Amino acid sequence: MPATPHTVTRCVCPGSFDPPTLGHLDVITRAAALFDEVVVAVHVNPSKTPRWAAAERVDALRECLAEALPPRDAARVRVDAVEGGLLVDHVRSVGATAVVKGLRSATDVEHEQPMALVNRDLAGVETVLLVADPRWGHVSSSLVRQVHGLGGSVAPYVPPAVLRRLAAR
Amino acid sequence: MPATPHTVTRCVCPGSFDPPTLGHLDVITRAAALFDEVVVAVHVNPSKTPRWAAAERVDALRECLAEALPPRDAARVRVDAVEGGLLVDHVRSVGATAVVKGLRSATDVEHEQPMALVNRDLAGVETVLLVADPRWGHVSSSLVRQVHGLGGSVAPYVPPAVLRRLAAR
Amino acid sequence: MPATPHTVTRCVCPGSFDPPTLGHLDVITRAAALFDEVVVAVHVNPSKTPRWAAAERVDALRECLAEALPPRDAARVRVDAVEGGLLVDHVRSVGATAVVKGLRSATDVEHEQPMALVNRDLAGVETVLLVADPRWGHVSSSLVRQVHGLGGSVAPYVPPAVLRRLAAR
Amino acid sequence: MPATPHTVTRCVCPGSFDPPTLGHLDVITRAAALFDEVVVAVHVNPSKTPRWAAAERVDALRECLAEALPPRDAARVRVDAVEGGLLVDHVRSVGATAVVKGLRSATDVEHEQPMALVNRDLAGVETVLLVADPRWGHVSSSLVRQVHGLGGSVAPYVPPAVLRRLAAR
Amino acid sequence: MPATPHTVTRCVCPGSFDPPTLGHLDVITRAAALFDEVVVAVHVNPSKTPRWAAAERVDALRECLAEALPPRDAARVRVDAVEGGLLVDHVRSVGATAVVKGLRSATDVEHEQPMALVNRDLAGVETVLLVADPRWGHVSSSLVRQVHGLGGSVAPYVPPAVLRRLAAR
Amino acid sequence: MPATPHTVTRCVCPGSFDPPTLGHLDVITRAAALFDEVVVAVHVNPSKTPRWAAAERVDALRECLAEALPPRDAARVRVDAVEGGLLVDHVRSVGATAVVKGLRSATDVEHEQPMALVNRDLAGVETVLLVADPRWGHVSSSLVRQVHGLGGSVAPYVPPAVLRRLAAR
Repeated sequence: MPATPHTVTRCVCPGSFDPPTLGHLDVITRAAALFDEVVVAVHVNPSKTPRWAAAERVDALRECLAEALPPRDAARVRVDAVEGGLLVDHVRSVGATAVVKGLRSATDVEHEQPMALVNRDLAGVETVLLVADPRWGHVSSSLVRQVHGLGGSVAPYVPPAVLRRLAAR
Repeated sequence: MPATPHTVTRCVCPGSFDPPTLGHLDVITRAAALFDEVVVAVHVNPSKTPRWAAAERVDALRECLAEALPPRDAARVRVDAVEGGLLVDHVRSVGATAVVKGLRSATDVEHEQPMALVNRDLAGVETVLLVADPRWGHVSSSLVRQVHGLGGSVAPYVPPAVLRRLAAR
Repeated sequence: MPATPHTVTRCVCPGSFDPPTLGHLDVITRAAALFDEVVVAVHVNPSKTPRWAAAERVDALRECLAEALPPRDAARVRVDAVEGGLLVDHVRSVGATAVVKGLRSATDVEHEQPMALVNRDLAGVETVLLVADPRWGHVSSSLVRQVHGLGGSVAPYVPPAVLRRLAAR
Repeated sequence: MPATPHTVTRCVCPGSFDPPTLGHLDVITRAAALFDEVVVAVHVNPSKTPRWAAAERVDALRECLAEALPPRDAARVRVDAVEGGLLVDHVRSVGATAVVKGLRSATDVEHEQPMALVNRDLAGVETVLLVADPRWGHVSSSLVRQVHGLGGSVAPYVPPAVLRRLAAR
Repeated sequence: MPATPHTVTRCVCPGSFDPPTLGHLDVITRAAALFDEVVVAVHVNPSKTPRWAAAERVDALRECLAEALPPRDAARVRVDAVEGGLLVDHVRSVGATAVVKGLRSATDVEHEQPMALVNRDLAGVETVLLVADPRWGHVSSSLVRQVHGLGGSVAPYVPPAVLRRLAAR
Repeated sequence: MPATPHTVTRCVCPGSFDPPTLGHLDVITRAAALFDEVVVAVHVNPSKTPRWAAAERVDALRECLAEALPPRDAARVRVDAVEGGLLVDHVRSVGATAVVKGLRSATDVEHEQPMALVNRDLAGVETVLLVADPRWGHVSSSLVRQVHGLGGSVAPYVPPAVLRRLAAR
């Protein structure tokens, strides 16, 4: 192949992150190994009451990433709160070409498939699915909320920064 | 975000391509939109007898890509025959960081999940799954071989170059 | 086989149709090719607040069918609003022998299987599942409501009559 | 609805039936309740060695149907051996408009979906999927062959006529 | 193997049982064949309004078990109402080592898998999944509530004691 | 609950174990925590050519278990080669009441469901499914054979005793 001029590649990792889990952190880290720049998009859904306010989720994610990544890599990952609107509009507004999501199970596929096709239909945005690390294949924010709410330890499921915030609440 | 140091990114699209389908072509084209360079790896499996010889599959793919992509993009896609060995060894030998596969259904996931995890276990190679275009979600090389073998038209499923070769055999 | 006396066959296509999609229209059209008469049953669920009133859903469906089918076929399709009660009671009250549903994915099966068995248990009513057209395999009313609500175009997913009504609201 | 012109409707129930099971019999019986005439198509695959010769499978099916259906219904069901060729060619040659198959599980769907789409692509032939009766949802010809081959009783899985033939072999 | 000293084994069958179904009864009965003692744990979820009060669900289950099991076996099954808290805490407080659940479908697995792993992560509690009897593979409490609420007969789905209570309400 | 008469409980863990994996070892270990005695049944299938002879698979399993379990537990696990015949016949001949299998994915369920139902139909034998440990959810004997055959390291997938034997071959 002739020498290929490199273009800066940028992707979006969307989610509610209520709260962020080790599974989220794994997907973001792996996205940062595939793309030059990663924009983590924290959904602010006005019609739902999250357990954690958007600002706290954004702060927690930034803290988690700063602790988990070397500074050189952390500098390539940005965390934004995104209010309403179509995901693809945000993807285009930040100059990204792809959405990156983790894939835990066959059920996840049936959920991600229609969304991926809609993103292509509406805006030609590509969706990249990464097979979840088996250690966190059963971990989700709702599981963390449920176990924590019932008094169980969520230490195996969330980054240290989230654990500290849960303890402080 | 600070300016990101540009590295050329490279991925591998593996398969038997016996014969190449419109679904294969779609995945390769989309991989070329995500990565600077794409290496299509045509498996040569000594223990199986393919319908098409490896050389013919390689030639057909090159022809399909030349017809489907603008020259500037076609120049960024290479087609190799790969004999035996672990896929991850080939991925590393060509300097790629990821494998790109299409994902047609929940069953595909259950097949791709173990392979993706093995590729990470053995060599830290990432697997990128792209949701198949619904027009070709039911298309596979084995379906093409079966329909063609029974006398049916496979025009809706394969690129023109493959159709011409099938007619010429 | 000896000459078989033909019996008029009638089926029911049930749904919320909130709003009707191109996927719904496809299933109704194909049902009309299998059965002599089709009764489209628009559920009126008193415990839910639909986006579209029942009367508007019924009108929209009639309009869509009139535009999509030749008059001879449109005359064989009827659209009813159905308030509460068991689906099988409606099926029997209109003299139908089967329910016709589209099948988009493996998850759909797990949803339709129990309902189909209940329909047989309660009233000997058969359920006919038709594999969704891949072009609309990812389309559902809830996806249409969500995309439209966020300001995206739903032109690829709904019949022209629905698009006009959405624009006029 | 205006009076509907009556057309005789005809479907095909394809399979290997090696041997016929109670699950097969259930699907054929239910197809006969939906269509005026049913053609059971026994595949003769020259490249495979069936446990039962095609003629024996055809005879067994006819015997099973004669024992299971009232004569009036049995007269509307025909059993043919079909050698090679595309299923849709046979469907059209017998003047049928649809293929009827049983659906046992989510995995079955992933198998039937591509075949149903190919039948539409190639010849506009519709595929009707009927949810399997739970009593026989785990029953298949290969399970019957395996259990019988290992000396187990297959009485719960096959019609009496098949049981008698197995005993006589 | 040398003579093994037997330890009394105890399991928990958790659920909402709102109301108990023949599927629940089947799983409890089979658990009693595998374990020396079975504790049926009726969830009392303060944030949900059940159709049946907890006390009625407990009474109904006791009645069902007394009618379905011989006294010797019924004596080995206990029914408890469990208010809030983690399931594993209840499992440990009653001295059980395992949770027993029925498995109806592939979708059930995707639901049970994360919960089983959490139970192991939090407390080393094992989860035993038993393939549902096909006669009740499509039966759930929510289906019973829905069919009964719409005026359909649920006689094929619930034990006689539940049917009597439904009639008496 | 009254004092329960103690009966020694016994289960069978069947498989080809060609070769044994860490996933197999995990299931056997967990079965030994649920049952007093475990019989590991190594299938000897005369119509297939295994990679490892039956005697070697039996020896390897015994070695793995001796290294992984404390002597007190190892004494409760027996490894047998089983030639042909129905699994349920072996289960009954060793006085066991249940079969224990690992469950890795939704696809596994669709495979295990029919077998579990046949085991009940034929001999009233119960099947206990245990959710696989996620660390080995993607591991199977065929994956081990494939990776080892292509020159990759299978150290993350097999017990030390199997690794030593692979090195010595």
